[in-house]
Amino acid sequence: MIIIMKPSATKKQVTSVIDRIKDIGLDVQINQDKEQVVLGLLGDTRSVQDIAFRSYEGVDTTIRISNTYKLTSREFHPQDTVVDVDGVKIGDGSFITMAGPCSVEGLDQIRQTAQIAKAGGAKILRGGAFKPRTSPYAFQGLEEEGLKYLRQAADELDMKVITEVMDESHIDLVAQYSDILQIGARNMQNFKLLAAVGKTGKPIGLKRGISGTINEWLNAAEYVAVAGKSPVIFIERGIRTFEDATRNTFDLSAVPLIKKMSHFPIIVDPSHGTGVWDLVPPMARAGVAAGADGMIVEIHPAPENAWSDGQQSLNEDTYRKMMQEIEVLNAAMNEIHSLEMLTAGR
Amino acid sequence: MIIIMKPSATKKQVTSVIDRIKDIGLDVQINQDKEQVVLGLLGDTRSVQDIAFRSYEGVDTTIRISNTYKLTSREFHPQDTVVDVDGVKIGDGSFITMAGPCSVEGLDQIRQTAQIAKAGGAKILRGGAFKPRTSPYAFQGLEEEGLKYLRQAADELDMKVITEVMDESHIDLVAQYSDILQIGARNMQNFKLLAAVGKTGKPIGLKRGISGTINEWLNAAEYVAVAGKSPVIFIERGIRTFEDATRNTFDLSAVPLIKKMSHFPIIVDPSHGTGVWDLVPPMARAGVAAGADGMIVEIHPAPENAWSDGQQSLNEDTYRKMMQEIEVLNAAMNEIHSLEMLTAGR
Amino acid sequence: MIIIMKPSATKKQVTSVIDRIKDIGLDVQINQDKEQVVLGLLGDTRSVQDIAFRSYEGVDTTIRISNTYKLTSREFHPQDTVVDVDGVKIGDGSFITMAGPCSVEGLDQIRQTAQIAKAGGAKILRGGAFKPRTSPYAFQGLEEEGLKYLRQAADELDMKVITEVMDESHIDLVAQYSDILQIGARNMQNFKLLAAVGKTGKPIGLKRGISGTINEWLNAAEYVAVAGKSPVIFIERGIRTFEDATRNTFDLSAVPLIKKMSHFPIIVDPSHGTGVWDLVPPMARAGVAAGADGMIVEIHPAPENAWSDGQQSLNEDTYRKMMQEIEVLNAAMNEIHSLEMLTAGR
Amino acid sequence: MIIIMKPSATKKQVTSVIDRIKDIGLDVQINQDKEQVVLGLLGDTRSVQDIAFRSYEGVDTTIRISNTYKLTSREFHPQDTVVDVDGVKIGDGSFITMAGPCSVEGLDQIRQTAQIAKAGGAKILRGGAFKPRTSPYAFQGLEEEGLKYLRQAADELDMKVITEVMDESHIDLVAQYSDILQIGARNMQNFKLLAAVGKTGKPIGLKRGISGTINEWLNAAEYVAVAGKSPVIFIERGIRTFEDATRNTFDLSAVPLIKKMSHFPIIVDPSHGTGVWDLVPPMARAGVAAGADGMIVEIHPAPENAWSDGQQSLNEDTYRKMMQEIEVLNAAMNEIHSLEMLTAGR
Repeated sequence: MIIIMKPSATKKQVTSVIDRIKDIGLDVQINQDKEQVVLGLLGDTRSVQDIAFRSYEGVDTTIRISNTYKLTSREFHPQDTVVDVDGVKIGDGSFITMAGPCSVEGLDQIRQTAQIAKAGGAKILRGGAFKPRTSPYAFQGLEEEGLKYLRQAADELDMKVITEVMDESHIDLVAQYSDILQIGARNMQNFKLLAAVGKTGKPIGLKRGISGTINEWLNAAEYVAVAGKSPVIFIERGIRTFEDATRNTFDLSAVPLIKKMSHFPIIVDPSHGTGVWDLVPPMARAGVAAGADGMIVEIHPAPENAWSDGQQSLNEDTYRKMMQEIEVLNAAMNEIHSLEMLTAGR
Repeated sequence: MIIIMKPSATKKQVTSVIDRIKDIGLDVQINQDKEQVVLGLLGDTRSVQDIAFRSYEGVDTTIRISNTYKLTSREFHPQDTVVDVDGVKIGDGSFITMAGPCSVEGLDQIRQTAQIAKAGGAKILRGGAFKPRTSPYAFQGLEEEGLKYLRQAADELDMKVITEVMDESHIDLVAQYSDILQIGARNMQNFKLLAAVGKTGKPIGLKRGISGTINEWLNAAEYVAVAGKSPVIFIERGIRTFEDATRNTFDLSAVPLIKKMSHFPIIVDPSHGTGVWDLVPPMARAGVAAGADGMIVEIHPAPENAWSDGQQSLNEDTYRKMMQEIEVLNAAMNEIHSLEMLTAGR
Repeated sequence: MIIIMKPSATKKQVTSVIDRIKDIGLDVQINQDKEQVVLGLLGDTRSVQDIAFRSYEGVDTTIRISNTYKLTSREFHPQDTVVDVDGVKIGDGSFITMAGPCSVEGLDQIRQTAQIAKAGGAKILRGGAFKPRTSPYAFQGLEEEGLKYLRQAADELDMKVITEVMDESHIDLVAQYSDILQIGARNMQNFKLLAAVGKTGKPIGLKRGISGTINEWLNAAEYVAVAGKSPVIFIERGIRTFEDATRNTFDLSAVPLIKKMSHFPIIVDPSHGTGVWDLVPPMARAGVAAGADGMIVEIHPAPENAWSDGQQSLNEDTYRKMMQEIEVLNAAMNEIHSLEMLTAGR
Repeated sequence: MIIIMKPSATKKQVTSVIDRIKDIGLDVQINQDKEQVVLGLLGDTRSVQDIAFRSYEGVDTTIRISNTYKLTSREFHPQDTVVDVDGVKIGDGSFITMAGPCSVEGLDQIRQTAQIAKAGGAKILRGGAFKPRTSPYAFQGLEEEGLKYLRQAADELDMKVITEVMDESHIDLVAQYSDILQIGARNMQNFKLLAAVGKTGKPIGLKRGISGTINEWLNAAEYVAVAGKSPVIFIERGIRTFEDATRNTFDLSAVPLIKKMSHFPIIVDPSHGTGVWDLVPPMARAGVAAGADGMIVEIHPAPENAWSDGQQSLNEDTYRKMMQEIEVLNAAMNEIHSLEMLTAGR
């Protein structure tokens, strides 16, 4: 950590800060710039991050130079972590597709969707059973009944399941039916929930918050990692910006950036990332090319009858075509990879 | 709700949408614009909000024209709601101050802070007992012990208490010690929690999410209102934008806007809104002038020793001066009010 | 255009709005929703867009349903426009690369860079001659001398030139040396400049403003299109958001979106889009897969000695590898295209 | 400037950076943190800001610790600059109002508006003569004719004039009619224009860009200041964020922040800041309380007939009431000031 004093800081103010640094057991290196004093803290500053040096008089600002997500960081864990979802590998160089409806609406609907998903190449079935909405008057999900249908539909086709857990009290329930526990965007910084799911041993699909920075996302993963049992799968799903032509702004640069910063795999969610069905296939293709380890997409047998998010769901025909495109692009990425040309991002 | 068809929409596509509207029991008014067809849905569209008309072929977009927060809206409840916190009124034209430390650090610290708060004119004591942080390695709060200290310090000075509840499982615990239940920014859309606190009958201090729109905030309040027992106090605390000279961008326009849209009171949080202690007093003054019903501020006997958020906490001297300024400005606002000059916002 | 009246609007207020609509020569269709009146304007509303219906008492809001960029829109021009830059085609299904340094620093530097660019496969040379910077104390460009060097270096290798024109008074000067006139992000809404370059007949490379919406960008293109002579090439270069791990947030969804809305080609600028050199190759690859018609990238013989933007420039080795990757991916995209699998975005 | 090396940086990489620092004539202080090396540059780093240390291998990031706006900064100019607009003082503790229509629509309209403005207490008349719009099909302003009407209306009532100059080629023309030259939000970083208006000697009203950071705004002012003749008046007018309930997000914290960082005065523009007429008075009041030196507001004799921006213009009645409120609040601020209570922000 570095502490930058104001040009107007008095000698006494500087000394007072230095004394505090030494009080908490750290060494300090003093730099006298032309205009101001800069103090460098030497030692493990993770433990001092909440000490409010900024409130000392004469302090201009403070800057962290080491990150706070040791277990998530690639720095101390250079090899990629490959997540094993009961035999399905994520992060091993293949491109994994998770597909399914926004909401589980009934057994027939999820079975029919699962068949489409599987036929197109998806190995993991998605579907929401708990669906709290912006408005309290909207459909809120089938809850446990939905989980059962989801599991049954997946088992019949030998698929794995990913679904969201929203509440600490539901972890056991959801873990009973799901292979991957998804943490939704609104819960990216629900630290108690993160710590709790991290103890289940199930892989955690960690969606980026709508206003989550890359740095906050990495720290959120650290909460899971600290618990010690569950690997993390990052899911980029778009952030909120001024642009309203798309539902969110799909921040695809997060893919190579997370791959640079962390050893955990990252997949993309072009359905929420764009919010418009005909932008999903090109953004899915872009996800492959950016080096993502997979994707999660919303499909529906009849999007115009979907109970939620129909406008971003693919119908069978579009989904199939997209999956063929993904296959061609993935082959191209493998060719690039085998020639050791790949510059970065995977 | 209005459905706008694409200029290229076929007659068959239009008919298919109209059939669906009628299927769900609504009437439709058909407008043939020069270039395209526009359909107006007649009836109670609250129940159809998740029906995905946007996924029909030929549909350009859909627009809601009535809001979905009936109980929160001023439209059907023109009078201001005055919240009674065990005798302390919020929303009755006075300007209420809630003050205290970011975190409860111990009994002495909270007692000392409470005395400063009270002496300056605050009637409600704030303080955090559960403090989950961005990094898992940081101080996480004193938990129940902190709640006890907070209650004791408040009782000794005949003050009321506001503190955050983060988890459904903690509601009873927190409600035992606190007069107002605060919902933090990260939980603005934790709908299960909102519904649960709404049943306690305690006033709910609802912070705006870091990326929460005014519309989403009003809908979040509706979750509390639907539960039927607890009034809402909106708390504007800044939103996340590209500007990083302040911790958040303090969106003070939310004050007159919420007053226009809703009958519930709104207070401001200039400490989180700016994140820098010397911007707190001018923004607190601005809050009075914008018509807020009160404010919540962070103070600390020794900000440079605070365990969290020291850089945005006021010391005793600055807090006292600020409270005198607030008093002068509040008198000016009362003068304006008594002359019936006030144009809007209160 | 649609005008939505408030539920509380009086009959007199509604009549007053209707009278105004008729006054300006339009017809009106009146919809009596359950709760409120909605008025539909029939006729060419392009001419009435600034009439402030929103300031009438009783009006809740107004909504435009037809766009205002007729010449740019794909609606009335379904075929792709292929831009011919003196023999080099943009928008014909190939993927065109424009490469070069941020600033022209001297004849040797631009010659050396041009050789690298050409050898890697770029057909168009980029380079800045006018470089106004955030701070007035920074390097501001070689101006006309820089333009000469740029043209000479391009001519020696039979390359085309793209460079920025910042000021109406410079148009003739820059047009003398450059094949494509680039409009920088800061000038996306400098409408006088747009109208002026639109008269040159040269293709216009129109960068998206740092806070420009897709809709504003399309309208900016319309200013060029109205002038009647110059085709537009959209350049996505990232927008400003809260995320600061990258220089900008690269909004790649703009590629399929612009392709859907407009007939003009779109290329991507991963250098400014990310601002970090090792994110450039994966984002360039993603650009190909998203369906872009090309890209513009910053390269430098010795990025660590560049006078500006060195951190986002590629050195020769990385550039070469990236171009090989692009070739493999472009072949894959052609395969997809030839099979008529492509779902959208090109 | 500080250069932070990666933990993985080799000795050779560190040496290579140090050599470069010495090459450009600066001294360096080397800090060996527990995990990584941090280099402090000693000397005048303003001249080296474009040297791309970030592109050196082994460099993690670089951090500027001294600002680049020496003439604008309060650091070296602690006293407030009072701007004298031909006898009307801005920044002397009074609160100055500039009022008028968005667009000058004709002589009658501007005369009528000027009378309303003057009667309410405004000393400076605003009005737009050049109005380039998002769409090329919209009204574009009366140009020189508008300037003449504006000057005439102001002169008849002994008012001063502020109007926008958009183009270097118009400076002489606009300066002939206007006392203050306004730089619009879109031109905040049109550095050539800034340098040119800075030579006129007229005060420059510098609007914040829609996506302009405080730091960029201060640097933009520096371009004017460097030219040496014209003082700057900052105008906060809102920034673009995800919130769309208001036209912009009015960032009122900019008032005390700019006052802390710079000696130049700052005024607020609640009309553009909110974009909705009934939010203008409360935000104007908030501007006074935040410590602004004045405001600029849009008024119109008949907002519903305005040719542009009618929805944010005040009619005579609302304007008058607002001005009375402003007077009461300003008296309160003077009382606060005279008691030396003021904590910050003026």
